[in-house]
Amino acid sequence: MTSSDLFRSLLLPDSIRPAVADRAWIAAMLEFEAALAAAEARAGVIPGHAAAAIAAACDLERFDPETLGREGRAAGNPAVPLMRALTEAVEGDAARFVHWGATSQDVMDTAAMLVARRALGVIAAELDGVASACARLAEEHRGAVMPGRTLLQQAPPITFGLKAAGWLVSVLDAREGLVSVPLAVQLGGAAGTLAVLGGAGARVLALLAEELELEEPVLPWHTARRRVAELGAELALAAGALEKIALDVALLAQTDVGEVAERADRGGSSTLPHKRNPVGSVLAIACARRVRSEASILLAAMAQEHERAAGVWQAEWEALGGGLAYTGGAAAAVREALEGLEVRPERMRENLDGLVLAEAVSTALAGRLGRLEAHELVEEASRRAVAAGRSLGDELADDPRVELPAAELARLLDPDSYLGSADAFVQRALDRYREER
Amino acid sequence: MTSSDLFRSLLLPDSIRPAVADRAWIAAMLEFEAALAAAEARAGVIPGHAAAAIAAACDLERFDPETLGREGRAAGNPAVPLMRALTEAVEGDAARFVHWGATSQDVMDTAAMLVARRALGVIAAELDGVASACARLAEEHRGAVMPGRTLLQQAPPITFGLKAAGWLVSVLDAREGLVSVPLAVQLGGAAGTLAVLGGAGARVLALLAEELELEEPVLPWHTARRRVAELGAELALAAGALEKIALDVALLAQTDVGEVAERADRGGSSTLPHKRNPVGSVLAIACARRVRSEASILLAAMAQEHERAAGVWQAEWEALGGGLAYTGGAAAAVREALEGLEVRPERMRENLDGLVLAEAVSTALAGRLGRLEAHELVEEASRRAVAAGRSLGDELADDPRVELPAAELARLLDPDSYLGSADAFVQRALDRYREER
Amino acid sequence: MTSSDLFRSLLLPDSIRPAVADRAWIAAMLEFEAALAAAEARAGVIPGHAAAAIAAACDLERFDPETLGREGRAAGNPAVPLMRALTEAVEGDAARFVHWGATSQDVMDTAAMLVARRALGVIAAELDGVASACARLAEEHRGAVMPGRTLLQQAPPITFGLKAAGWLVSVLDAREGLVSVPLAVQLGGAAGTLAVLGGAGARVLALLAEELELEEPVLPWHTARRRVAELGAELALAAGALEKIALDVALLAQTDVGEVAERADRGGSSTLPHKRNPVGSVLAIACARRVRSEASILLAAMAQEHERAAGVWQAEWEALGGGLAYTGGAAAAVREALEGLEVRPERMRENLDGLVLAEAVSTALAGRLGRLEAHELVEEASRRAVAAGRSLGDELADDPRVELPAAELARLLDPDSYLGSADAFVQRALDRYREER
Amino acid sequence: MTSSDLFRSLLLPDSIRPAVADRAWIAAMLEFEAALAAAEARAGVIPGHAAAAIAAACDLERFDPETLGREGRAAGNPAVPLMRALTEAVEGDAARFVHWGATSQDVMDTAAMLVARRALGVIAAELDGVASACARLAEEHRGAVMPGRTLLQQAPPITFGLKAAGWLVSVLDAREGLVSVPLAVQLGGAAGTLAVLGGAGARVLALLAEELELEEPVLPWHTARRRVAELGAELALAAGALEKIALDVALLAQTDVGEVAERADRGGSSTLPHKRNPVGSVLAIACARRVRSEASILLAAMAQEHERAAGVWQAEWEALGGGLAYTGGAAAAVREALEGLEVRPERMRENLDGLVLAEAVSTALAGRLGRLEAHELVEEASRRAVAAGRSLGDELADDPRVELPAAELARLLDPDSYLGSADAFVQRALDRYREER
Repeated sequence: MTSSDLFRSLLLPDSIRPAVADRAWIAAMLEFEAALAAAEARAGVIPGHAAAAIAAACDLERFDPETLGREGRAAGNPAVPLMRALTEAVEGDAARFVHWGATSQDVMDTAAMLVARRALGVIAAELDGVASACARLAEEHRGAVMPGRTLLQQAPPITFGLKAAGWLVSVLDAREGLVSVPLAVQLGGAAGTLAVLGGAGARVLALLAEELELEEPVLPWHTARRRVAELGAELALAAGALEKIALDVALLAQTDVGEVAERADRGGSSTLPHKRNPVGSVLAIACARRVRSEASILLAAMAQEHERAAGVWQAEWEALGGGLAYTGGAAAAVREALEGLEVRPERMRENLDGLVLAEAVSTALAGRLGRLEAHELVEEASRRAVAAGRSLGDELADDPRVELPAAELARLLDPDSYLGSADAFVQRALDRYREER
Repeated sequence: MTSSDLFRSLLLPDSIRPAVADRAWIAAMLEFEAALAAAEARAGVIPGHAAAAIAAACDLERFDPETLGREGRAAGNPAVPLMRALTEAVEGDAARFVHWGATSQDVMDTAAMLVARRALGVIAAELDGVASACARLAEEHRGAVMPGRTLLQQAPPITFGLKAAGWLVSVLDAREGLVSVPLAVQLGGAAGTLAVLGGAGARVLALLAEELELEEPVLPWHTARRRVAELGAELALAAGALEKIALDVALLAQTDVGEVAERADRGGSSTLPHKRNPVGSVLAIACARRVRSEASILLAAMAQEHERAAGVWQAEWEALGGGLAYTGGAAAAVREALEGLEVRPERMRENLDGLVLAEAVSTALAGRLGRLEAHELVEEASRRAVAAGRSLGDELADDPRVELPAAELARLLDPDSYLGSADAFVQRALDRYREER
Repeated sequence: MTSSDLFRSLLLPDSIRPAVADRAWIAAMLEFEAALAAAEARAGVIPGHAAAAIAAACDLERFDPETLGREGRAAGNPAVPLMRALTEAVEGDAARFVHWGATSQDVMDTAAMLVARRALGVIAAELDGVASACARLAEEHRGAVMPGRTLLQQAPPITFGLKAAGWLVSVLDAREGLVSVPLAVQLGGAAGTLAVLGGAGARVLALLAEELELEEPVLPWHTARRRVAELGAELALAAGALEKIALDVALLAQTDVGEVAERADRGGSSTLPHKRNPVGSVLAIACARRVRSEASILLAAMAQEHERAAGVWQAEWEALGGGLAYTGGAAAAVREALEGLEVRPERMRENLDGLVLAEAVSTALAGRLGRLEAHELVEEASRRAVAAGRSLGDELADDPRVELPAAELARLLDPDSYLGSADAFVQRALDRYREER
Repeated sequence: MTSSDLFRSLLLPDSIRPAVADRAWIAAMLEFEAALAAAEARAGVIPGHAAAAIAAACDLERFDPETLGREGRAAGNPAVPLMRALTEAVEGDAARFVHWGATSQDVMDTAAMLVARRALGVIAAELDGVASACARLAEEHRGAVMPGRTLLQQAPPITFGLKAAGWLVSVLDAREGLVSVPLAVQLGGAAGTLAVLGGAGARVLALLAEELELEEPVLPWHTARRRVAELGAELALAAGALEKIALDVALLAQTDVGEVAERADRGGSSTLPHKRNPVGSVLAIACARRVRSEASILLAAMAQEHERAAGVWQAEWEALGGGLAYTGGAAAAVREALEGLEVRPERMRENLDGLVLAEAVSTALAGRLGRLEAHELVEEASRRAVAAGRSLGDELADDPRVELPAAELARLLDPDSYLGSADAFVQRALDRYREER
């Protein structure tokens, strides 16, 4: 009954949605309960048959998200009704060992880690796809000269390969950052001492971490929220890297620039038949905005009171789920945009404003005239060229102070000869990509 | 398939959820299409029978949110598939007048205004409930002396009535701010000129505003997003006012303070049978955090490119829906907390630290001793009293510089005689409440 | 010794800096102390000569910001050392009436309101300049046809006048919003009851409001922070409106678009002599980002504990000062950019992609062919035109289904005849501007 | 002339202020220019004597922050006027090699890294102080039983040592995260290709990294902002960990709780002589709010256009400087609060609500009665105890279903026997601390 499918199925691909869905959360909560029982049985805290009975009752189909949500309203979290329902579902005396020694936050936090792990797998795969597309673009277009653009003004030339190589490195960094966030089990009991488990607390904690293949924390982290906030930060960092790519694509796809276009089967307009809207970029930018806002909740949620927070923790669940979902959305949208990207090297070259080579001439003249004078000479020539509608080369050739042979001047004004280390940088990026793959 | 029911049905009451649900958005989009056709028929732009046929086809049951969302992915918004489906549903040649002259953003923005109007109605009603509860508490407890608390330290006494009166004024302000945001129709066509409507654009705009009972804007506001951002800001302001109340309640409900408790049928703990968790406050705080994050998206979304934004606008929909939903959630949670609030005036009085009257003595002595000396004298007496475990009164009585009769000293140290304008302020707040109701 | 002059004198113009400087805060704090004494003298609470002596001691030159700051560190606010220093500066027994009945937060909050009032005056004047420039541009260029642009793709034509008119309305709204925030005096004493003033509290409050020409609140608002948060919200809304203008200017000034350029005496590059960087827009965008972040502090600061907050209030001072400063910075930068803007109508017309008139043809054909078929016919013709490098007109003329006379087709493809209500909207905006001025 | 000293010298200690001051930025910019010349001389790109002359001119005293800022306004950054002034200061023909091949952003970004490195050193030292104080508190109070508190309600007992151990681990994590952010040199020239350096670009980049002891990036990162955003994120994570400690201290220091107090030479109130305000916590919370808002600018600044951003990059400088400054401020404030913390173990024990042991009894009964029935039995007993003003032990002893010997019941209700793994967790935290030191 809430407003999510309409917009979420638009912004989010099928790859990420199941990983953060209600069912994924409930499954993760049940996985915690079964693993807790198993760990406690291994530690001799509860009988082995109880663990088996609990595991058998952890059947996702028993539980309805909306019912758990509504019933959770009285307790302030959905773990309380889940545990109650699970207890009812367990046969015989094993029921009393459900959730033994644990507290609601243990279930919720561990479930959050499990949901995050699954979703991060999807996100990492999407980022791999983005990186692969970037690497292909960098390789294929390493010689495609195009205007560099600073402050949205044309600057000295670059190659499209260099631009894609820059994207590539950002995506590799984003992926590395995301998968390096430690995902740890949570188990502390009512106040973080595992008092109910007597002396077996630390042992059960270690076994539970083993069962779930999560990291074992130094101590329970009910109100030490770095793990969750760091996930938020890494999601925002990944979304930022993706948004930068999307922004570049949208700017290059401007009708007035036309150096790239997103795939033709997308982006048709309802009223403008010929339009090729950069829809992938648009979706990615929209998703990235949401990721950042969710991350801001998580970063602001670190100041939690005493041993469990009164409100701030409860704001984390949707923020984490949303952060994961929309990062996946941004990654998928960028991947689709880049995989289908039409690159137009000829348009790139056409768009090059001759004036951007001014720097090359200025540098060449600086040795003889001094840097400031050379700068001013070329600046004036540029202004005269614009005013007169002439090329910069002609304007410079007419200036007696220039004293350069025509061939040398032509070479200086040839963008292909003014690419510096562009190709070397592309190679360095591709080398890193290949090493890491 | 998305993660919303589990947490949304926990954090959000039934009052607000339908108002922001997918179906509410689709209904609003259809309302726009029908009203546009009606306005255009009135303006003579399309035939009357076409408007009737379009209105007849605007049947909510035809449209599935998830399908619209998925199909909208190719276009970047759900209006395109909706309009396509609606066109198919309209009988005969009227079909070609569906959405006549409008663009996708016209539908989406106007629908957002309609959704906001409905949700604001719910929020206003919840806020009325909060205000009513505050007014009752202010009235009933205007004589209930309790510690003022500054920087979480006890300060001179206030009354619980004064605290509730402060909440009351905040809620009245919040409500006033929310309902004063202008909700305007959006209609500009593909680029904001209503070119398809020829010379009839302004006329149709006026009639459409009339049909929908929305404000008529000076000009189309596709990328002039103040309306939406201002809604976001007002929602954040309302949520902030509610969070302040929730925070006060949670702090007063601390076991160590115990001056209030939320209703007994809520807040039971899974492991601690005797706990009375301040669940309403907890939910309100969690909701308020989400409202602010959604509002931050809306405020950051004002910088939209040219005549329609590439990504930023598309981030608004869920942010607005979420902002409305969670403000409703915060209001309902605070209302429930206050309506069922158990207030304990005797505990309030017990908790009063005798030292808080130090200011009264200091003020009384200042006339004779000078303010700084009086201040120091009382400060030292307070320190001695704490160290010796004596009352401040005894300590002061022993100091020859005090020179006050015992009765006068007793009066100065009586909290009821040191409430200044507390009661007058309560009255002023109640007066405002009654005038506005 | 802090990092502010280097960047602040870059981002902020001279108009706004003094209004939010340390000295402005200290002056406002002194203004409060003098006015409080005057109000209390009028109410008969303190002797008239004491008020005069206090006013005489309120000399800005006595106080060093850094010293006050350092000394304030022990108390958590700078009002405590200021009041101590002021007390020492007052001659005779009047000293004991300094700050009579007030608390530190009374000084700080009222000073914040006074600082805000002065800064808002500067901001309003800058916004007036922006509005004036927008109005001039809207008027001068109301016939300047240019591409509409949606999702950064060309859309049907608009006029530059219409674009400027949209900016104009946004700026008028921003100004209106900013000056409508109620600025109220703060006076509550230690716990908000004005206990020291006995029964005279409400009377002194009213007189103080009169002295300072600030609004009188219903009750003290130490932890009812809507006023401050609302200021933050309005500053963010204004900054958003300004950032939208800056973004449009920067995009139009792209080398590849070239439809406008910022003034020639700015924006020179260190390495690229011919560049005309859109520096005003750049500064405005940078400022707007800071405004929003400061506003987010203020909006998040509404949840303050009990009668005075422990940390959150103390975060407000710089956030408010920064919000005011950078809004002024954004307004000044946009004003300068627009006042010196070089508009190139010929380039606007040149840039128009002939395909953007596709909608006009599609609309004309819809009556006969039905909207979807007409849409498809034109879409195909557009694609063929692009592929063949022909004009859309030629391509359509060759399609037998089109059946339009050549003159009619030419008219449909003439942008000047497809501007709908653009001019009417410009007029509406100018009318509003003139009415309000 | 800007509003910073008043509040910054209040919120920030002397340890951090010089590290982020204007002079630190200018010094870092000069350090870049000198190191660039040295690297280029080593690579044979410029003459060795030129590098020496440039290094000699890099004298901090020559440059005035406000002048650089004002002059930088025309260019949009302060590097342009700095480089101009530096060029003028260099003797002879070496002047033309100043800034050779570099662009303004190379200077600014590298300077930002150098400023960050210095400030992170200060922050790390402050965090070491916090960690040391936490470790001491954890060790000294590992046996100090106190109420656990969840949702601000008392929960089963913990020890103050465990609470401090949790803080300790958070601070160790924060420090580790902060110092692990890679700080890299920036050098790309006008468009990121180092075109002016011809084939020597990559070599100069490597040598420059060596000169400055910064990391060498794969390629220039003008618009790949992860490094800066990640710094922002880590600062926010550190600030969050510090704010949690401050919040706990402020809550424990409440008059109504009184389990700790900040040092007595701080926190005096202007009107309430006996108050011991938790001023360190207050300052830390205020600082943390500012850190988060600066971090949000940095995280939102990742989407930068093409090869240099138009506005977003320019918003980074103050955000980074502020983020560093206030993290240092928060760390110093928490360190001071903890170093001077008065801990009151007797009050902690006194405050323990007997009911918090209900869980222990419930667990003991669960084996025989089943968990739900045991839970209900104890819940009812707790309610009866509260209603009757009796102890839970008495109430339980009267319930025939309990069937526990009096000694066993007494043991169950003894908090010292219900601490589970608290001590083990303290040891684990101290072990980690000692290993890492």
